[in-house]
Amino acid sequence: MIKTRLIQLRNIMTEIKADVYVIKTADFHQSEYTGVYFNEREFMSGFTGSAGTLVVTKTKSALFTDGRYFIQAQRQLQGTEIELMKLDVTGTPTILEYIDANVSENGCVTFDGRTIEAAWGLELEKTLNKKNATILYAKDYIDIIWTNRPSLSKEPAYILDVKYAGEPVKDKLKRLRSKMTQKDADTHLIATLDDVCWLFNIRGNDVKCNPVVLAFAVITMEEVYLFTDEDKFSDEVKNVLMVDNVMIKSYEDVYSYVEKLEKATILIDTQRINYSMYKKIPATAKTVVVENPTVLMKAVKNNIEVQNLKAAHVKDGVAVTKFLYWLSENMRTKQNVTEISASNYLENRRREQEGFIELSFDTICAYNSNAAMMHYSATAESNAVLEPKGMLLVDSGGQYYEGTTDITRTIALGPVTKQMKKDFTLTLKGMLNLSSAKFLYGCSGMNLDILARGPLWSEGIDYRCGTGHGVGYLLGVHEAPNGFRWKLTPGRNELCVLEDGMVTSNEPGVYIEGSYGIRIENEIVCKKAQKNEYGQFMEFEMLTVAPIDLDLVDTAYLGAIDIERLNKYHRFVYDTLSPYLDDKERLWLKKYTSAV
Amino acid sequence: MIKTRLIQLRNIMTEIKADVYVIKTADFHQSEYTGVYFNEREFMSGFTGSAGTLVVTKTKSALFTDGRYFIQAQRQLQGTEIELMKLDVTGTPTILEYIDANVSENGCVTFDGRTIEAAWGLELEKTLNKKNATILYAKDYIDIIWTNRPSLSKEPAYILDVKYAGEPVKDKLKRLRSKMTQKDADTHLIATLDDVCWLFNIRGNDVKCNPVVLAFAVITMEEVYLFTDEDKFSDEVKNVLMVDNVMIKSYEDVYSYVEKLEKATILIDTQRINYSMYKKIPATAKTVVVENPTVLMKAVKNNIEVQNLKAAHVKDGVAVTKFLYWLSENMRTKQNVTEISASNYLENRRREQEGFIELSFDTICAYNSNAAMMHYSATAESNAVLEPKGMLLVDSGGQYYEGTTDITRTIALGPVTKQMKKDFTLTLKGMLNLSSAKFLYGCSGMNLDILARGPLWSEGIDYRCGTGHGVGYLLGVHEAPNGFRWKLTPGRNELCVLEDGMVTSNEPGVYIEGSYGIRIENEIVCKKAQKNEYGQFMEFEMLTVAPIDLDLVDTAYLGAIDIERLNKYHRFVYDTLSPYLDDKERLWLKKYTSAV
Repeated sequence: MIKTRLIQLRNIMTEIKADVYVIKTADFHQSEYTGVYFNEREFMSGFTGSAGTLVVTKTKSALFTDGRYFIQAQRQLQGTEIELMKLDVTGTPTILEYIDANVSENGCVTFDGRTIEAAWGLELEKTLNKKNATILYAKDYIDIIWTNRPSLSKEPAYILDVKYAGEPVKDKLKRLRSKMTQKDADTHLIATLDDVCWLFNIRGNDVKCNPVVLAFAVITMEEVYLFTDEDKFSDEVKNVLMVDNVMIKSYEDVYSYVEKLEKATILIDTQRINYSMYKKIPATAKTVVVENPTVLMKAVKNNIEVQNLKAAHVKDGVAVTKFLYWLSENMRTKQNVTEISASNYLENRRREQEGFIELSFDTICAYNSNAAMMHYSATAESNAVLEPKGMLLVDSGGQYYEGTTDITRTIALGPVTKQMKKDFTLTLKGMLNLSSAKFLYGCSGMNLDILARGPLWSEGIDYRCGTGHGVGYLLGVHEAPNGFRWKLTPGRNELCVLEDGMVTSNEPGVYIEGSYGIRIENEIVCKKAQKNEYGQFMEFEMLTVAPIDLDLVDTAYLGAIDIERLNKYHRFVYDTLSPYLDDKERLWLKKYTSAV
Repeated sequence: MIKTRLIQLRNIMTEIKADVYVIKTADFHQSEYTGVYFNEREFMSGFTGSAGTLVVTKTKSALFTDGRYFIQAQRQLQGTEIELMKLDVTGTPTILEYIDANVSENGCVTFDGRTIEAAWGLELEKTLNKKNATILYAKDYIDIIWTNRPSLSKEPAYILDVKYAGEPVKDKLKRLRSKMTQKDADTHLIATLDDVCWLFNIRGNDVKCNPVVLAFAVITMEEVYLFTDEDKFSDEVKNVLMVDNVMIKSYEDVYSYVEKLEKATILIDTQRINYSMYKKIPATAKTVVVENPTVLMKAVKNNIEVQNLKAAHVKDGVAVTKFLYWLSENMRTKQNVTEISASNYLENRRREQEGFIELSFDTICAYNSNAAMMHYSATAESNAVLEPKGMLLVDSGGQYYEGTTDITRTIALGPVTKQMKKDFTLTLKGMLNLSSAKFLYGCSGMNLDILARGPLWSEGIDYRCGTGHGVGYLLGVHEAPNGFRWKLTPGRNELCVLEDGMVTSNEPGVYIEGSYGIRIENEIVCKKAQKNEYGQFMEFEMLTVAPIDLDLVDTAYLGAIDIERLNKYHRFVYDTLSPYLDDKERLWLKKYTSAV
């Protein structure tokens, strides 16, 4: 099947004289996760992971993906001609290098420009200029091959009441326009779906687990346009948007609109608009290329959002605790539970919570060695039966009107080894250490990452990924710009200052290939501590409320301060959750949050 | 006197039609510390600090300096028209902003271009271009006013034997040329004195505490020129340099030499050459503007240098320990000791050590509240008599053939408060914590700074400066690019990766204005730890060998791991130093390094 599709593509490439065809995992909005309409890379390669780029030349093809998906991609590409390219592994060319090696002098690279980030397209232009090669980007040729393609999502949009969003649209627009003025811009193009939804206090259902609406926005000093499928907007929703003079225009018309901005000074984020849109900007227009101001505005949660998030985390903690109790009972009574049935049980506990909308990502429920794969997703074939021994890693989250959650717990299902307990305890120590940090305003995640990683590094262990990511409010579970990382990644704003109201995950772990995986993840919100002659001190508050498995704690690896932190957290967990539990669950929680 | 000098300068300014005259604390080599010939800023302002910029306009004048010198500058500027500008304090303009505000359309800014860093001059050009104003930089007008100016240093240069330097000049040149080739450069101008001395394995005595020779170097693929005062070089030294074909030319001729590089591709570091030299580069020459490759090469000490440094630190530790014993005896018997007499006693103990050359900086010996000034220097007026109570801070170091040392100890002279002990203990905890770090290769000081600062930040205390700086090898006590800092400073390479062989100070502290100051400083060398599937781990080894005052330690603020680290360090100190001490000193050290 893949073979036939690649033949079809190469026939087209010959016709249009293209040396290379590039298919990224992307929609028209630089989304991390995309609707089914956009699964061209999956359609053409058979690889179903959430991230990867397929590059097809006249004679060969390659799929570039990252460490999360090496094993899965290897399996799914088997039997095809497509070579797996392991990104960030020594010896692997970058996608640009690979393209460069496969394009001839005066040659041509083709892709659907709407699915390519402008910044990357501009980088490619630089590379191709040296060979006098060109880019053909105005047409989606895969659409010709993909005859039974699903249609674009038609799910309705809805208003997120200000009691959830915390700030009226008019205030957000005012703040945004003032930032545009600071940058001497009079027009701003927003293509990223979470930025658009945040700005207009709207949500939708166009991407699974991401309650967004497919839309572009254009903000000028006087006008506001939303380019979207008008059918998704009920009269009621339109009436609310009308209050702020938001004018709805057809989704596809954004390109012709941009083409007419001849005298504008346009604020754009080339990492957050697509290449086709960028190329529509008239030569006479000025551009101000900076990060979308909404990125930082959205990351700093307002007081109402933070209060709501706390409520969401209590609901989420209740669901997780009920699940943990059920799991421990089932292990005791040796019931038949699998990774998938456990995931389903947990999902149902979340669905019982008031204000729950959907999961915030596909639950990772991974038993023993499956957990060594950071982003494991159980399939019918891999679905392991849980036995009363070893460890289960469960990384899950929900979308609530009160916000987005993301929590990981690793649980002993029965006897575990001393090494497992040691690794779990060091992970816990790091998680508590970072959560307890106090630091001067001005610190970024880069300054703090070692607080979580240090206890593992001291033992010669690393977890090969960031310690944490920003989390949206009823939006993406991964949100820029805040995070905890120790290395600079090009194009990422690692040095973003931690602001009062930023919500970040804190999730160190240990992953032993073929053996087991451990991750403990709490979300923490940054807030102000004291201000004195040295400056404004900042600290974190735990948002996540769920017990940490004491059966996996070996106090030999904890100092007095670590034990104090663990016991304090467990008192908070018990006090917060116990009113929502039945007697059996409460007794169980009492025991599993008792002081060590 | 200052008044008369400023009148003379303003007369000159009128004559040459200058709006602004700028005098930086600088020689022609961007040195941190300079010879007496270069003290123009001190001559014109009366301020004697090691850092500061005087800006004189037709009607007013301002001295810009940093937090180390606010108190001293305030006092020394008293009675003059010169306004103190506190750098990095909210509301203080930058020097560029101040100049911009005081230069008229088509106006003129004047300075001796040889004393201005090229990068700063180029920034100024940008600012002035907007006003069509110009820079007059070819003449040193202060020289006209300063009639009894000291002459340039005439001190002899000497060869640093390869048994000290660890690498022959020819090997250094080979490595340097390979780095030039990587950057497509065929010529490299080096103006920084430590880089020149490191490259040619020479030392001199042209700057107090900095054993350097005033010289410029030009390296091409075939030739090597040293522009310096030939009289400083004996025939013996010349013969050694001749082996590597180093040709000596007159100091002043470097400018006319650069002027002739019409076809060269010149590697320059605009932060490390002066503006006049930069302006001499012909328009037809190409430039490659990067950090001098010697900066990183010199920072990574080779194995012989590290072994020598360990020997130097033992000598230094013996001197410091003898001093500490003497001090404790004198406090017990209530002898009359002052800050200055204590400094002298310590200096004499260093002078007794074989291979000692000079101090590596003016000793900071600061009693009680004097120690709250980070860079206090006792004068005849301020010189405090030490009493058997409170704390004494002693920050000192030596230049040995085996390398440069820098150590700070804070000592209880008698009864101290609980708060002093708490602050000392938290400082100690931070120092030990950073020194014990294990981390993956790729970390910079920014990743690690919080390990030292964290224990103080947790209590709402900060020390308002970096945690540590690189240290030279028989060169500057402050050396780029490594360091421990948490904030990015423009123009500084904070993200420089910590390499095997880099030597950095680790010196957290607490400074309570008007009350006391605490600093504990050890030098640590970075080295490889294990390499495994996660990558190359790195760790530090303590170079500094001297006891930490147990009378100031309150174990209530230490965890089990901190106590283990302290006792381990003290065992190392006793074992290393005891063979070099007399019986009384040894007994005293035994007690003061006993396990807590």
